Amino acid sequence: MNSELKSYLASHRDEQIEQLKQFLRIPSVSVGSEHQEHIGHAVDWLIASLRQAGMDNAQALPTGGNPVVYADWLHAPGQPTVLIYGHYDVQPSDPDDAWDTPAFEPDVRDGKIYARGATDDKGQLFIHIKALEALLAVHGKLPVNVKLCIEGEEEIASRHLHAFLEREAERLQADAVVISDGPMHDRARPSVLYGLRGLCGFSVELKGPKHDLHSGLYGGGVQNPIHALVELLASMKDSDGRITIDGFYDKVNPLSPEDKTRFDELRHDEEQVRKDLGVEELFGEKGYSFLERTTARPTLEINSISGGYQGEGIKPIVPTSAAAKISCRLVDGQDPDEILALIQKHIDERKPPGVTVQVTPGVKGKPFLVSPDDPYIRASARAYAEGFGAEPVYVRGGGSIPIVEAFYRLLGAPVVMMNFGLPDENLHAPNEHFHLDNFDKGIVTVCSYLQEIARR
Amino acid sequence: MNSELKSYLASHRDEQIEQLKQFLRIPSVSVGSEHQEHIGHAVDWLIASLRQAGMDNAQALPTGGNPVVYADWLHAPGQPTVLIYGHYDVQPSDPDDAWDTPAFEPDVRDGKIYARGATDDKGQLFIHIKALEALLAVHGKLPVNVKLCIEGEEEIASRHLHAFLEREAERLQADAVVISDGPMHDRARPSVLYGLRGLCGFSVELKGPKHDLHSGLYGGGVQNPIHALVELLASMKDSDGRITIDGFYDKVNPLSPEDKTRFDELRHDEEQVRKDLGVEELFGEKGYSFLERTTARPTLEINSISGGYQGEGIKPIVPTSAAAKISCRLVDGQDPDEILALIQKHIDERKPPGVTVQVTPGVKGKPFLVSPDDPYIRASARAYAEGFGAEPVYVRGGGSIPIVEAFYRLLGAPVVMMNFGLPDENLHAPNEHFHLDNFDKGIVTVCSYLQEIARR
Repeated sequence: MNSELKSYLASHRDEQIEQLKQFLRIPSVSVGSEHQEHIGHAVDWLIASLRQAGMDNAQALPTGGNPVVYADWLHAPGQPTVLIYGHYDVQPSDPDDAWDTPAFEPDVRDGKIYARGATDDKGQLFIHIKALEALLAVHGKLPVNVKLCIEGEEEIASRHLHAFLEREAERLQADAVVISDGPMHDRARPSVLYGLRGLCGFSVELKGPKHDLHSGLYGGGVQNPIHALVELLASMKDSDGRITIDGFYDKVNPLSPEDKTRFDELRHDEEQVRKDLGVEELFGEKGYSFLERTTARPTLEINSISGGYQGEGIKPIVPTSAAAKISCRLVDGQDPDEILALIQKHIDERKPPGVTVQVTPGVKGKPFLVSPDDPYIRASARAYAEGFGAEPVYVRGGGSIPIVEAFYRLLGAPVVMMNFGLPDENLHAPNEHFHLDNFDKGIVTVCSYLQEIARR
Repeated sequence: MNSELKSYLASHRDEQIEQLKQFLRIPSVSVGSEHQEHIGHAVDWLIASLRQAGMDNAQALPTGGNPVVYADWLHAPGQPTVLIYGHYDVQPSDPDDAWDTPAFEPDVRDGKIYARGATDDKGQLFIHIKALEALLAVHGKLPVNVKLCIEGEEEIASRHLHAFLEREAERLQADAVVISDGPMHDRARPSVLYGLRGLCGFSVELKGPKHDLHSGLYGGGVQNPIHALVELLASMKDSDGRITIDGFYDKVNPLSPEDKTRFDELRHDEEQVRKDLGVEELFGEKGYSFLERTTARPTLEINSISGGYQGEGIKPIVPTSAAAKISCRLVDGQDPDEILALIQKHIDERKPPGVTVQVTPGVKGKPFLVSPDDPYIRASARAYAEGFGAEPVYVRGGGSIPIVEAFYRLLGAPVVMMNFGLPDENLHAPNEHFHLDNFDKGIVTVCSYLQEIARR
């Protein structure tokens, strides 16, 4: 990277962090409906920020829900076009009392910025905006054509983005899609992410007696919906962590020897993970390492469960209902609709007597796997090497960005996941944070990537 | 009953209902701590009401928690002394939106009064106060000596009453204890209740990773506390409703042929119960009728369960913890401490890997069974016959009033459960109500009982 760009970045560093803090102060939570005003605030803030960076056509494009923020710079004829994706919405901050500093009052300590959205995804998204601004400020132009597509519903399953991509396919047309919305492998090694797990979410509600019953007068006489739910959920996994839904693993592609080698080369420190999580032992499907289980094997996780009186003290009742929210992570070969059908069949065959069971489908996304040899992927490895001074490793991700698969399929362009977060930055949890040295290195990496893919 | 008493009751009926409404308007909820002011209000109101009735020494006696309201009338030398027990605290009213009229705005419709506490226990307790008032007003005296002990923590396991009874044993000394805090067998037949189930409550909390984890990054790699809890709870009961805690049934006294005959004579309409509860079928331990299962067989019921994000939408996490509150109803022969030890052993032997399990003991009460031939019990049958114009049936109750067993043991006096509620009056549920004809008949029954036990 040339020295002019370097000195520009150095002299604007404090200003960038102050701007990031402004962005993080907006509680643009998309779950629920109480933060609509802040969603609008985040949209306005982003548009102003993109204009300031020197991008053209910065605007809010309507969807069936929260708008997409779009901008572009298309003055590099003959050069490829890159579409940068990010999201401005964040997870809820609860439980608020578990945060050391308030979720929406960004605080920098020990080189990290603490706030909801710091790593997921405001901090990572802002890297791109600041990289574009730096290139435009120093060179007066970008090396390639660039479009930005920044959505506001990633944390609620991008529920309107699919239709948006279909409608706006022409406007969004690109040669590669770049997304920074996840963690690198670890602090020392940036990573090129060539796979993601899919997602199949659903909720189950069991209804029993038409209202709560006194457990003294009715206990033992009627089915308790919590018992029935517990029995049903326990039947979905064995005590070794293997999912017992008939057919669940049938279409999973087994790990190839090359896959196994790639995992082994990562030399993942499971003991360190165990310590960091504060558990006495890690746990999961037998025969696979932690990294394999969390990235290349499918899961079924109960995300929440509820039934009966949730207040202080005990209310001795047989409750009228009980419910759970569940999500499966899927891997290459599995299809969310097929998996949901298998689960529905499992539940139908085991419905306990005396209750009704309602399964409601939720979020859904196909798994994603791209060739590690695609030129746009290889270019990202070279850019990381410049930004971080270290050769990146090739890894698969355990999370799900259903729209990655959608971009891949609908725009016909390779998706490059250029992550700058770290796995232990508490995303979706209290004390979410982002390492500011990765913010700095990320800007260099993005500048370098755009230069790498320019045809010479 | 003499005509003077009858016409007194008739002419004061409206006034009695208005006073009951005043009592029901006080939201004297003992669960949690937000209603302390109303607890105090209920105490003051009761003392005034007892003084108005003509009782002596009406006062609040301190306990380690909510005070006991005491009063007496001891001017019948040579006659037995009856101790009347009731409680002025009520269950919480949630979910408030499920009530047709607000829980603390009593409403009379179709001959029933709707309000939290209408049947449990304010309405039933008030019968005694009004019976005493009527006898004192008409005759200038009571046929026997009477004491009242009205507590404010029945809905939170009477947690300070045991110590109170031990401390105040002398003041409370009596020849019989009368309690009206439950349902009669059914509308047509008053019932003499000669048994109650005991109670063994506890909570289980499972802790896993030190904070919530993103299920994409960690799902499949660590134990999910909800899965572990579900597995543990499912292991406590089989799919036929039989409890699978080793030794749980060992000390249960089997039903005698006389017991079986007594149950058969009740000709309980299970189909009607099924319809009333709105379930497709009743359910429980095989080989026993609904009535046997709910009064003479022990149970284990999960009263509440929680884990993960409880708000709107789905938060895809592996939660840091999961918890359940459970209560067992126990029958003659079982001891709550022994049962809790069996449960603790069951849990210890099955603790899933990767979580810690904490069992916290809760409410506790021994089962109670008295001879149906005790003279104070027989007298209650004659009083019911007068009050209701129908011979009572002898039944066992499924609920737990742990202090019944405590009164029996600590005061050495038979406990007469003289219930005036009905089983379908929604106690502990929305739209709790009390049939006002049973309020009227109850006053006659109590007057008659006090006259029946007077030595002639």
